Amino acid sequence: MTETEATHPATEGTDETHAEGFVLTGIDGLDEMLGRGVPAGHIITVLGSFGTGKTTFALQFLMQGLINGEKGIFISLEEEPDSVIANAASFGWDLKSYLKEKKLHIVKLEPADAKSTVTRIRSELPDFIKKSGASRVAIDSISLLNMLFADDQERRERLFALCKQLKSTGATCVFTAEVKDDNSRSSRDGLVEYVSDGVIGLRFNERENGDVQLVIQVIKMRRLRHPRSVKPYSITDQGLEVHGDMEVF
Amino acid sequence: MTETEATHPATEGTDETHAEGFVLTGIDGLDEMLGRGVPAGHIITVLGSFGTGKTTFALQFLMQGLINGEKGIFISLEEEPDSVIANAASFGWDLKSYLKEKKLHIVKLEPADAKSTVTRIRSELPDFIKKSGASRVAIDSISLLNMLFADDQERRERLFALCKQLKSTGATCVFTAEVKDDNSRSSRDGLVEYVSDGVIGLRFNERENGDVQLVIQVIKMRRLRHPRSVKPYSITDQGLEVHGDMEVF
Amino acid sequence: MTETEATHPATEGTDETHAEGFVLTGIDGLDEMLGRGVPAGHIITVLGSFGTGKTTFALQFLMQGLINGEKGIFISLEEEPDSVIANAASFGWDLKSYLKEKKLHIVKLEPADAKSTVTRIRSELPDFIKKSGASRVAIDSISLLNMLFADDQERRERLFALCKQLKSTGATCVFTAEVKDDNSRSSRDGLVEYVSDGVIGLRFNERENGDVQLVIQVIKMRRLRHPRSVKPYSITDQGLEVHGDMEVF
Amino acid sequence: MTETEATHPATEGTDETHAEGFVLTGIDGLDEMLGRGVPAGHIITVLGSFGTGKTTFALQFLMQGLINGEKGIFISLEEEPDSVIANAASFGWDLKSYLKEKKLHIVKLEPADAKSTVTRIRSELPDFIKKSGASRVAIDSISLLNMLFADDQERRERLFALCKQLKSTGATCVFTAEVKDDNSRSSRDGLVEYVSDGVIGLRFNERENGDVQLVIQVIKMRRLRHPRSVKPYSITDQGLEVHGDMEVF
Amino acid sequence: MTETEATHPATEGTDETHAEGFVLTGIDGLDEMLGRGVPAGHIITVLGSFGTGKTTFALQFLMQGLINGEKGIFISLEEEPDSVIANAASFGWDLKSYLKEKKLHIVKLEPADAKSTVTRIRSELPDFIKKSGASRVAIDSISLLNMLFADDQERRERLFALCKQLKSTGATCVFTAEVKDDNSRSSRDGLVEYVSDGVIGLRFNERENGDVQLVIQVIKMRRLRHPRSVKPYSITDQGLEVHGDMEVF
Amino acid sequence: MTETEATHPATEGTDETHAEGFVLTGIDGLDEMLGRGVPAGHIITVLGSFGTGKTTFALQFLMQGLINGEKGIFISLEEEPDSVIANAASFGWDLKSYLKEKKLHIVKLEPADAKSTVTRIRSELPDFIKKSGASRVAIDSISLLNMLFADDQERRERLFALCKQLKSTGATCVFTAEVKDDNSRSSRDGLVEYVSDGVIGLRFNERENGDVQLVIQVIKMRRLRHPRSVKPYSITDQGLEVHGDMEVF
Repeated sequence: MTETEATHPATEGTDETHAEGFVLTGIDGLDEMLGRGVPAGHIITVLGSFGTGKTTFALQFLMQGLINGEKGIFISLEEEPDSVIANAASFGWDLKSYLKEKKLHIVKLEPADAKSTVTRIRSELPDFIKKSGASRVAIDSISLLNMLFADDQERRERLFALCKQLKSTGATCVFTAEVKDDNSRSSRDGLVEYVSDGVIGLRFNERENGDVQLVIQVIKMRRLRHPRSVKPYSITDQGLEVHGDMEVF
Repeated sequence: MTETEATHPATEGTDETHAEGFVLTGIDGLDEMLGRGVPAGHIITVLGSFGTGKTTFALQFLMQGLINGEKGIFISLEEEPDSVIANAASFGWDLKSYLKEKKLHIVKLEPADAKSTVTRIRSELPDFIKKSGASRVAIDSISLLNMLFADDQERRERLFALCKQLKSTGATCVFTAEVKDDNSRSSRDGLVEYVSDGVIGLRFNERENGDVQLVIQVIKMRRLRHPRSVKPYSITDQGLEVHGDMEVF
Repeated sequence: MTETEATHPATEGTDETHAEGFVLTGIDGLDEMLGRGVPAGHIITVLGSFGTGKTTFALQFLMQGLINGEKGIFISLEEEPDSVIANAASFGWDLKSYLKEKKLHIVKLEPADAKSTVTRIRSELPDFIKKSGASRVAIDSISLLNMLFADDQERRERLFALCKQLKSTGATCVFTAEVKDDNSRSSRDGLVEYVSDGVIGLRFNERENGDVQLVIQVIKMRRLRHPRSVKPYSITDQGLEVHGDMEVF
Repeated sequence: MTETEATHPATEGTDETHAEGFVLTGIDGLDEMLGRGVPAGHIITVLGSFGTGKTTFALQFLMQGLINGEKGIFISLEEEPDSVIANAASFGWDLKSYLKEKKLHIVKLEPADAKSTVTRIRSELPDFIKKSGASRVAIDSISLLNMLFADDQERRERLFALCKQLKSTGATCVFTAEVKDDNSRSSRDGLVEYVSDGVIGLRFNERENGDVQLVIQVIKMRRLRHPRSVKPYSITDQGLEVHGDMEVF
Repeated sequence: MTETEATHPATEGTDETHAEGFVLTGIDGLDEMLGRGVPAGHIITVLGSFGTGKTTFALQFLMQGLINGEKGIFISLEEEPDSVIANAASFGWDLKSYLKEKKLHIVKLEPADAKSTVTRIRSELPDFIKKSGASRVAIDSISLLNMLFADDQERRERLFALCKQLKSTGATCVFTAEVKDDNSRSSRDGLVEYVSDGVIGLRFNERENGDVQLVIQVIKMRRLRHPRSVKPYSITDQGLEVHGDMEVF
Repeated sequence: MTETEATHPATEGTDETHAEGFVLTGIDGLDEMLGRGVPAGHIITVLGSFGTGKTTFALQFLMQGLINGEKGIFISLEEEPDSVIANAASFGWDLKSYLKEKKLHIVKLEPADAKSTVTRIRSELPDFIKKSGASRVAIDSISLLNMLFADDQERRERLFALCKQLKSTGATCVFTAEVKDDNSRSSRDGLVEYVSDGVIGLRFNERENGDVQLVIQVIKMRRLRHPRSVKPYSITDQGLEVHGDMEVF
């Protein structure tokens, strides 16, 4: 066993493009918790049950880039482009203008047509990211993408390969991921949280009197010292807003 | 990877028909909690254990439309049409007159005859909805429908395809779904809650002294800011009634 | 997809025979909780762990009919006819005289001989019910019957078909069903509670000091508004007796 | 479907031999809880984790019969005859004299030689019981016996057939059964508790300070009204002793 | 079915060699709890999670014999002989001298070479024990040994056969066994605790302030009345030491 | 069965090289808890959920060696060499200089290319370790490595073989391992904790008010008496730091 060639350039290579900088998520309160946002080039998994605002997180992350003049790609496995656009519009985010200017691309992958979808992702995604010049990519959701694969073995290999391809593009990525069970902190596949550079958990916190509070936690963030405390957040007219100064009840 | 053609029209298309408006569920107290009901064209999953009134919810939703002059379809996998009609009659809802006027259609699918059922759903449902002019569709229950499919892979693909077809019709849909376990907030298949636009949970809340309270929660509703608090509801002579001003015990 | 023909007559048909009336279960205190008993023609599942008196419930339900001059059928998968008769005798119910007068039929199905049992049930049961003139049928237990089938798919299809056949006879049915786990409110197959019109749960409630209380709950009853509170019951010399005025401890 | 012939004789048959009488278990305090012991001819399952004294219960039950002049059979799947004898001797029960007089038979079945064991049980056990004149039979444990069978389907059919054969002999039987999990009230196979006429549960009750109390509960006993309270018991020099007047801690 | 021949000699046979006597485990405080140690010829399973000192227990048990002039065999599936020796040395137990004198034998079985290992165990172990004159045998761990077998059926048959062979040698045996889950009292295979004559549980008991206490419990010990209380123990420079006079916190 | 030849040399062999000494982990506070670090030649598994700093632990362990003039190998299955280097740099550890001097080797194994990876590990790793002169090896993570294997049987055999090969090199190894579930103390494969010489657990401890504390526990350490208490730790600018004098909250 000799060291892989890939290692040598790495040890001397420069990684200024995507390892030195930070990118803001655009989530009010979260960027403050993290300091300067998340490390550029990271793959961040947003992990939560349905109804916790994972898609909104992904859209808000892309909007932050669009406002900054960056380009973005939203890869949807759940909602049709129409629905994504309407969803964003309900937060006052006008995706249509960015779509027209080719600053944003919405790609719908059909889970009902697994084979061709998988083939397209493998062969075309990295090129598409590079050609489009996107520096932010969202996949909503990685869990549905993983379900396209026939078995655990294939799922693992594809997920690893996808992450590697995405990392090679230098773009910062947000994956939304479904949890295994109601109150779990494990994803449905139990893998994506390990291969991601960062994991942000979204959960319900239920009070005895029937109130329900949404809470967020930065569980993992490679190359960044970060608080691990659980903080309440709301889904407002402007998207997610983390209340870093509030206690959970 | 180039953007799908489907995306382009979407970005310019108009979605007035089913994205701008709202439809009332007809559930007293729930429409108030949501503001103006649910977004038109949404697929809403009503998720709960047996005995929580899921079928009643679906019927009440259709009745609200019938009263407004809309047309509806009730796709039943559990009860025979007779039983559905008698069930509705026990709440004072006279389905027979609407059936005669072809404003309501009750379709019984036979879980005991899986193959032909599946074939009919695939090939005929979208057309049937469009021809009938129905703007509200209820499937009771999506869990039994999912069980018709041979394996997880097929289940996923069919469910995605069904949702897409339903969305294409512009009708607002209510799916009833069974929970995985007694107190779970996951559906039996663990999928429908993710592909639906909205999820409303119905649950039992048991007191120490033996009283049992039914409670409702809007867990997810795309494109709508909504309270996530848990509220008691009753099943009365007029159907479900949510007590938005009561606390759970 | 056109409406099934079966639907049309239903919408105009009369369902006086089995949808308008109510039948008493014969369980003291339970009929009072329900008002007038259970809707005639319903399939009622009595769901509980071993030792909760499910078989006694089923026998008591049949006895109530026999006393009223109705005919009944007891389909046993657990106990031999001898044992059923002796069991009933221990509650003072003399089944032998009814058996002689052909007002009661006890049918033992052999779980050890799955294939012929299944064949007989499919081909002969509906006719047998109609010919015997039985208006009450008990299957003890539906869980053991379900176990006869080879896999989940077959189990589902057979259970649906059986329920449909039973409904077509107009008889009111009681199924006893085993729970999945100790404290579960799900049946062993997780299906029968959804396809039944009513579900009555029987459970153990254990006190710290070692006392154990049996408690009953009407969890589901289509077409009937009913309390959902949990009430204690006893197994006395006269069968089950629900203490509707007592609190659980 | 016509009634089985087996039913007709049953309705007229006499079941004096094994349905009228009661047999004492020989467990101090338990017979008092039950009143007069267990109904003769019943199959009683003693359900508990390892270390709760299930084998001792079975031996004590046989000893009570031997002392009364009855004959007994001990079918062992766990311990060798030597070990059974030594085990009994440690409670002061001298099995050797009864073995010599042919009043007791110890049969060791080899789980390691599944096929021949199963064959022997099927073809020879009922005859062996009848020829030996045994009125008490213990199988230690039914869980290990069930494991001999290849799959769930076979397990079910064999268990039902075995119970039917045992019932036909008129002997009262004690099965010991292992629990599924630590604190479960379900047996390893989840079946034997339903096909048995009676179930007696043995469990550990652990105190905060490290004390552990053994507790017993009569969970089910067909044809007998019985208390369901949980009571402490000890394993003393004379076998199991139930403390019916003590509370659990 | 006739009684097995094996039964007859047993009923008359003498079992002085390994049934009358007791052997000390060498664990300070445990032998006192048990009275005189464990019955000779017993198979004792030491059940616990990793880090509870199971291997140390097994070594200490062998050392006690070596000090008494008995011979022993340590069958290792986890650690290499080197490591076993070093491990023992860290407790001041000099295995090397005993190995040289052929009073102790360490046999390493390779889990990586399943087939030949299984063959060797079956054909050679009983003879090896008899020839070596060992009266104490430790298998560390039985869980890893069980994993060598292809399926549950084979696992059961082999484990039963192994136990029978070991019993036939008259040696007292200690099996170490891994637990199924963190806090379980079930072994990984769920079998060994039932076929063993004794089970001693080792567990972690965690305090709120971060202290962790090791606790021991004699859960089962055939032919011996024993306390079932849970007691703290330590792993000291001299091995395990049970604090029979301390309470758990 | 005769003793394996491997045993004989072992009993006389000298194990000074890797059994007598101790190596510091470099984790502040942990080495103090352990006394003198961990025994040289041990395989230490660092077990924890994502976000607990397992990779940081492994890097810190290697850095400690590099600072001492030892050589090290980091085998990565998760992160690319670039990312590993950047990750280390964020703690002020400059791996590049050591890589240039060939004192550190980073080997990236591709989970997406299972077969060749497995082949390389088997045939080349031991030699590579010996030739490089590395006395410290980290595998990040062993869980991902285990996933490369097709089934449980192969996984077990490979893991055992790998451990044996690693032990033969005399190097001290750190494996990072993922937990099975959120709060579990079992690894994903449930095996590595048993075959390792030491296990160090990393966990989240969540407070009611939303604060989250990281806690560490030395669960197992062969040949070393060690405290088992749970202690808080932080991930600081200099890596992991254990607060041995603090209580967990």
